[in-house]
Amino acid sequence: MTAALLTDMYEYTMVDAALRDGTAHRQCIFEVFTRHLPQGRRYGVVAGLGRILNYIKDFRPSDDELQFLRDNKIVSEETIQWLENYTFTGTIHAYREGEMFFANSPVLQVEGTFAECTVLETIILSVLNYDCAIASAASRITSAANGRPCADMGGRRAHEDAAIAASRSAVVGGFVSTANLAASLRYGIPAIGTAAHAFTLVHDSERDAFESQITALGKNTTVLTDTYSVEDAIRTAVEVAGPQLGGIRIDSGDLASMAQKARHQLDALGATETKITVTNDLDEYAIAALATAPVDSYGVGTRLVTGSGHPTTSMVYKLVEREGSDGLMHPVAKKSFGKSTDGWRKRALRAYEYGLAQGELVLAGPEDVVNSWDEDTYGDTKDLSIVAIDHGSIDESLTTREALFAARDYHKRTLNELPVNALSLLDGEPAIPTEVITLV
Amino acid sequence: MTAALLTDMYEYTMVDAALRDGTAHRQCIFEVFTRHLPQGRRYGVVAGLGRILNYIKDFRPSDDELQFLRDNKIVSEETIQWLENYTFTGTIHAYREGEMFFANSPVLQVEGTFAECTVLETIILSVLNYDCAIASAASRITSAANGRPCADMGGRRAHEDAAIAASRSAVVGGFVSTANLAASLRYGIPAIGTAAHAFTLVHDSERDAFESQITALGKNTTVLTDTYSVEDAIRTAVEVAGPQLGGIRIDSGDLASMAQKARHQLDALGATETKITVTNDLDEYAIAALATAPVDSYGVGTRLVTGSGHPTTSMVYKLVEREGSDGLMHPVAKKSFGKSTDGWRKRALRAYEYGLAQGELVLAGPEDVVNSWDEDTYGDTKDLSIVAIDHGSIDESLTTREALFAARDYHKRTLNELPVNALSLLDGEPAIPTEVITLV
Repeated sequence: MTAALLTDMYEYTMVDAALRDGTAHRQCIFEVFTRHLPQGRRYGVVAGLGRILNYIKDFRPSDDELQFLRDNKIVSEETIQWLENYTFTGTIHAYREGEMFFANSPVLQVEGTFAECTVLETIILSVLNYDCAIASAASRITSAANGRPCADMGGRRAHEDAAIAASRSAVVGGFVSTANLAASLRYGIPAIGTAAHAFTLVHDSERDAFESQITALGKNTTVLTDTYSVEDAIRTAVEVAGPQLGGIRIDSGDLASMAQKARHQLDALGATETKITVTNDLDEYAIAALATAPVDSYGVGTRLVTGSGHPTTSMVYKLVEREGSDGLMHPVAKKSFGKSTDGWRKRALRAYEYGLAQGELVLAGPEDVVNSWDEDTYGDTKDLSIVAIDHGSIDESLTTREALFAARDYHKRTLNELPVNALSLLDGEPAIPTEVITLV
Repeated sequence: MTAALLTDMYEYTMVDAALRDGTAHRQCIFEVFTRHLPQGRRYGVVAGLGRILNYIKDFRPSDDELQFLRDNKIVSEETIQWLENYTFTGTIHAYREGEMFFANSPVLQVEGTFAECTVLETIILSVLNYDCAIASAASRITSAANGRPCADMGGRRAHEDAAIAASRSAVVGGFVSTANLAASLRYGIPAIGTAAHAFTLVHDSERDAFESQITALGKNTTVLTDTYSVEDAIRTAVEVAGPQLGGIRIDSGDLASMAQKARHQLDALGATETKITVTNDLDEYAIAALATAPVDSYGVGTRLVTGSGHPTTSMVYKLVEREGSDGLMHPVAKKSFGKSTDGWRKRALRAYEYGLAQGELVLAGPEDVVNSWDEDTYGDTKDLSIVAIDHGSIDESLTTREALFAARDYHKRTLNELPVNALSLLDGEPAIPTEVITLV
């Protein structure tokens, strides 16, 4: 299955009709944005750009897929031929991965002909809507963890391929490792793991299980201690591994008091360097509540891969300018009740004072007017978009493993530039206001 | 990326240790179940079995993946060789796709050696946790739609591959069609589509857009009417297509009153057969509220692919019996606080009275005792599990397209056997009680 079929049928039938009437070749600008952040959220985090670029690079149906379109009379032969030769020749501006976004932030701008832009709508939205949801949750989770490392253990609670994207997006939001081998192979994210209860249960005793694990994986391994009694398990594990035991994991019960007791017990046994990992439906709230407990790292599953209550991002892909029959670009907007859009290409800036972000400016208008806008009115500003594809030429550096880890650094840095209320876990207003200014 | 790497690292490191100490070869029974339905839900719907069987059929790492495991020293060479030759030789019992499940329902039972069962944990859970979440939501949505057809339009709001699984699971829950071409190609689900606002906007006028669409797709097409004024759009569309216009779509505003007004207007124009489709963040509640509106079909997106508030299912994979050093099978259970398990293989029955389901019986105990249990105590009962894999031999009929549509029929039939409160959208108790009975 190629990226070209990860697509809603109407993208192709619209192109089919537009190829017949000639509008398929009109120059267009589409923008991706959300009308609102999820209820109460202070900011969103962009993720998925690298994945989108890889899809665009290979966006062409296979022979089988073309035959399917033909057999089912979904499009005409003219459109089949157009798809056979598809190459995106347009330009994409985008927010960096790791960048914050707010309502109306033009996260991605796609310029090209109506046809070449339209067929990319579904895949672009699928990637952004999922990846941004996970990165946004991950950022809140790692903020709550306040420097203690967070590991993605959510693969089993997500669709098996979404799990890989979730591991990647978690890194953008500050996670350091993943349990998922596919994500480790594909993106170079460090793989981690402990053991499951079944491993203890398949052995005749917990001691047998720990001996086996420590023999195979070394003393630095992390043993799971809550199959029977945590206290007994810790005593056994230290007897088997000695005080060099790498770590223990607790996966049930009152994690704070259990971690505290475990720490005291480990210290009393001389295992002062043994780490304590906790897991069990953790999210940013549960982790914040563990701030004073002697926990060394967190394994986060369900709540990470489901966006901690917001599993999608409500991003939409809207036409904002298009060439008219006069050959000139015109702003366009729909008037749908409660879902109207703003015409014109946008230029997004973040305004700063003393290095702290004060607001998001979204300027709409003719390109020359917007670009010559006097920035001084708002003090220091930073343009938020970069060029990801320039007339068909993809910036490959944005698709590398290095780019993923750079996105994490970038996110951490820019998050620290937001007002401190951005880090509040309480529901509230966006961390900074967004002002949409139409310059015409 | 093969199914074998869509896996948490610890599955392989546990096998590595177990191969060294010999427990890898112990016969085991693992069971998949959830400890509780999502808050307030009356029932869950099984989906994903066909996908799981396909993954098990091909579960073997590629050469690149084996090299990754070797290079990163994740497992020993002995384990690499074991993985190279992996074939599942065990037996899987499962609830049918479309079957209802409740807390503690043994949805899937995996029997085989510890090693061959352990490596399947992650992929089995990923598939069931996502697919059951979507099928469960779809079932509530189609119940609320009460016979009006529902179409999946959620691909853009989900991870791009999860979108395909969502289309499939939606069918299990009663959906009739999908916008997603990949799902249509893979599973034979009828593809549907209308047009986007961009199609209207790229044209010089709404009339130009409708003329183009109707020329390309015929009069039976569905036009999108809320780009500007719905009333004007309907008038224009009927002028262009005549009263044979196939359908209109409304995607914003107060859908009930807009549909009512549209119906009156269409009828007045003679377009009495023109269908009305509504979309816009619909879920079971919104659809229930549209019951009296003259709507012909629903397009459902975000809320379908995110499980209508419950995007995962909390299924777990637990060891319940294993061979001991005496060569006999023994029940095993963990005691983790709040997450303890019940030992012994389970046998699940549904009890009926006058053809109506009265309760779920989950019998635990030695196989012969459980199988000879006297069913008459509970009146009519039905065994809920079927054999999906018998000593390595997969029942291929469960992986076909026909099986998917049969699952939809089966679901509808068995849902009608539940007490009518199952269909309540209000939060409440499970539709029928589950009793776990240990027979030892």
